[in-house]
Amino acid sequence: MLKHSDYMELALNMAKATQGQTSPNPAVGAVVVKDGDIVGLGAHLKAGEGHAEVHAIRAAGEKAEGADIYVTLEPCSHYGKTPPCSQLIISSGIKSVFIASTDPNPLVSGKGIQQLRDAGIQVHVGECQSEALELNKHFFHFIKHKTPYVTLKTAITLDGKTAAPSGDSKWITSEESRLDVHYDRHRHDAILVGVNTIIRDNPHLTTRLPQGGKNPIRIIVDNHLRTPLDANVVTDNESKTIIVTNESVKEEDKIPFMEAGCEVISLSLSRIDLHHLLRELGSRSIQSLYVEGGSAVHGSFLEERAFQEFIMYMAPKLIGGRDAFTSFGGSGVAAITEGLEMNIVSIESIGEDIKIVAVPKKHSSKKEG
Amino acid sequence: MLKHSDYMELALNMAKATQGQTSPNPAVGAVVVKDGDIVGLGAHLKAGEGHAEVHAIRAAGEKAEGADIYVTLEPCSHYGKTPPCSQLIISSGIKSVFIASTDPNPLVSGKGIQQLRDAGIQVHVGECQSEALELNKHFFHFIKHKTPYVTLKTAITLDGKTAAPSGDSKWITSEESRLDVHYDRHRHDAILVGVNTIIRDNPHLTTRLPQGGKNPIRIIVDNHLRTPLDANVVTDNESKTIIVTNESVKEEDKIPFMEAGCEVISLSLSRIDLHHLLRELGSRSIQSLYVEGGSAVHGSFLEERAFQEFIMYMAPKLIGGRDAFTSFGGSGVAAITEGLEMNIVSIESIGEDIKIVAVPKKHSSKKEG
Repeated sequence: MLKHSDYMELALNMAKATQGQTSPNPAVGAVVVKDGDIVGLGAHLKAGEGHAEVHAIRAAGEKAEGADIYVTLEPCSHYGKTPPCSQLIISSGIKSVFIASTDPNPLVSGKGIQQLRDAGIQVHVGECQSEALELNKHFFHFIKHKTPYVTLKTAITLDGKTAAPSGDSKWITSEESRLDVHYDRHRHDAILVGVNTIIRDNPHLTTRLPQGGKNPIRIIVDNHLRTPLDANVVTDNESKTIIVTNESVKEEDKIPFMEAGCEVISLSLSRIDLHHLLRELGSRSIQSLYVEGGSAVHGSFLEERAFQEFIMYMAPKLIGGRDAFTSFGGSGVAAITEGLEMNIVSIESIGEDIKIVAVPKKHSSKKEG
Repeated sequence: MLKHSDYMELALNMAKATQGQTSPNPAVGAVVVKDGDIVGLGAHLKAGEGHAEVHAIRAAGEKAEGADIYVTLEPCSHYGKTPPCSQLIISSGIKSVFIASTDPNPLVSGKGIQQLRDAGIQVHVGECQSEALELNKHFFHFIKHKTPYVTLKTAITLDGKTAAPSGDSKWITSEESRLDVHYDRHRHDAILVGVNTIIRDNPHLTTRLPQGGKNPIRIIVDNHLRTPLDANVVTDNESKTIIVTNESVKEEDKIPFMEAGCEVISLSLSRIDLHHLLRELGSRSIQSLYVEGGSAVHGSFLEERAFQEFIMYMAPKLIGGRDAFTSFGGSGVAAITEGLEMNIVSIESIGEDIKIVAVPKKHSSKKEG
């Protein structure tokens, strides 16, 4: 017989498999168990369609009576695009509910649980909580801050270079690492690069996976509107493109881009306004931002402490070069002690490369902290 | 009852524990086993003193008769500072010899084994061979090439910087990593830095471990003889110091350094002559060189392909800076494909840091390869 954690892991695995396809909703999985048998399984598949509990309880049918349900997120208690899951659970006759994490929205958090308890259902919260928080970290961050969860990605050599002094960077990492990047493009609502990347590489910034995938919205940071009108991101219609320019750019210069289907956001891209940009993106329901920046873009996000996660692919190559580019440019700190301290989340081999994921330490997440 | 590999592992562990104290001899361990009991243990402890087999067979006494011996390196067959171990094994009555690796010296390799076989002793070669080669990689390389095994060491931030743009580098890595560096100083015959390190930090470059340790010979690469006469490496008498200058430096300028006890080697430090320097060090019986270089020194060793191993301590900090220093400077490659491809040997956590060890791939060990 399986343990509570086994059922919850199964619900989490179903939810993980749907990451990238449920936005702006979180990924959620549910398992209905009766007398040791799994009688219903379900995951939320697409915004506007049934929640995980609906699929799982429908599959269980009459067997839901007296059963337990394992769900990775607190059941909703309000009428949205679908009726509240708390009421469905109550009416189905389920006797116990296991919840991995509560709803992150402070306005509704705990209300679903309260409704269940008021109806005499046993509710247990916290099984596999950390995995559940990790699974929907983009959503949770967005609900709390109204700005996207920002992940900076870089590919470097073993000696810390992102490009040779000539600018050549093809290809630092292995095919396996580049494929992994496409999975992350699929899992993010938007991707951000600087205009120099557009001019130099003319990328599509789309998700290219053997099995397809969702293209992220493309955000181009382009102070002086240097994006070529015939750039792939302007002309390919593969996804929406937002060009972020300085407010000094003339309106008439923006028109051809808007006619080509791009959105143009104008703001002062100074120290303060990277946070302003994130609020603008948040107001467009962009919950997650994948920054494939060069040295200057990453340098700005570092200086502003405007990111939540850092992913580094390190290739086993040494290229040297005093003037080669590194992952974080900008002016840098005056002393090592002023650096941003990070926690290493994971280190793994990927192809011939090493993938390292790190997050800022809580106490140093603010520059003044 | 233990397996062959268990006894050989034990012999290797004894040898490992003596690394750093046996130079110019290799570290060797030996175990004598009779009827499943260990009856003798030994390791070579210091050049000029007894070999591992001598200690182990002496401990076994009469029990060596009919016993097996496990030894990490082929027993010597010639009279050096001590009589040949092959003869001792034969006269002790040992019936089987297990050897992890043969003698690397082509002039004597296999001769010890032949003597044993001629005496009717069973000889088995190759148990734990790769560990045995790793254990004495410095010695094996030196015997083969007559130049030291060169290990480049660096300490970087997560964004690949060795110092802030200001030059500040104290302290990038944790105390645990810095302690690990002192173990490596103990295990190497010599340590090499550029003169800028001497001028900026005035280090002693000694081994500072809680339990003591052997100080490496200090090698200062100093083209224009800018080392201060009152630098710690000149005045502290903790170990020999060799200053390597350009041949254009005047003899009279070298005299005060020689009077202070330093050796001064003059050679042209151009592209070719880093290999020349290694031959000079080899002729002084320096089998292993630990390069704690800055960006320029490491850049030269990379450009010359003049190293065998690279050790990187990476601290979980981001400091940024377009003009910050990186681990390998110099002019760098024109294209990524011209980089030196490496094999990752190990990745481990050390304190809060990540330690990565890599070696050049065989096929790209020459620049023209």
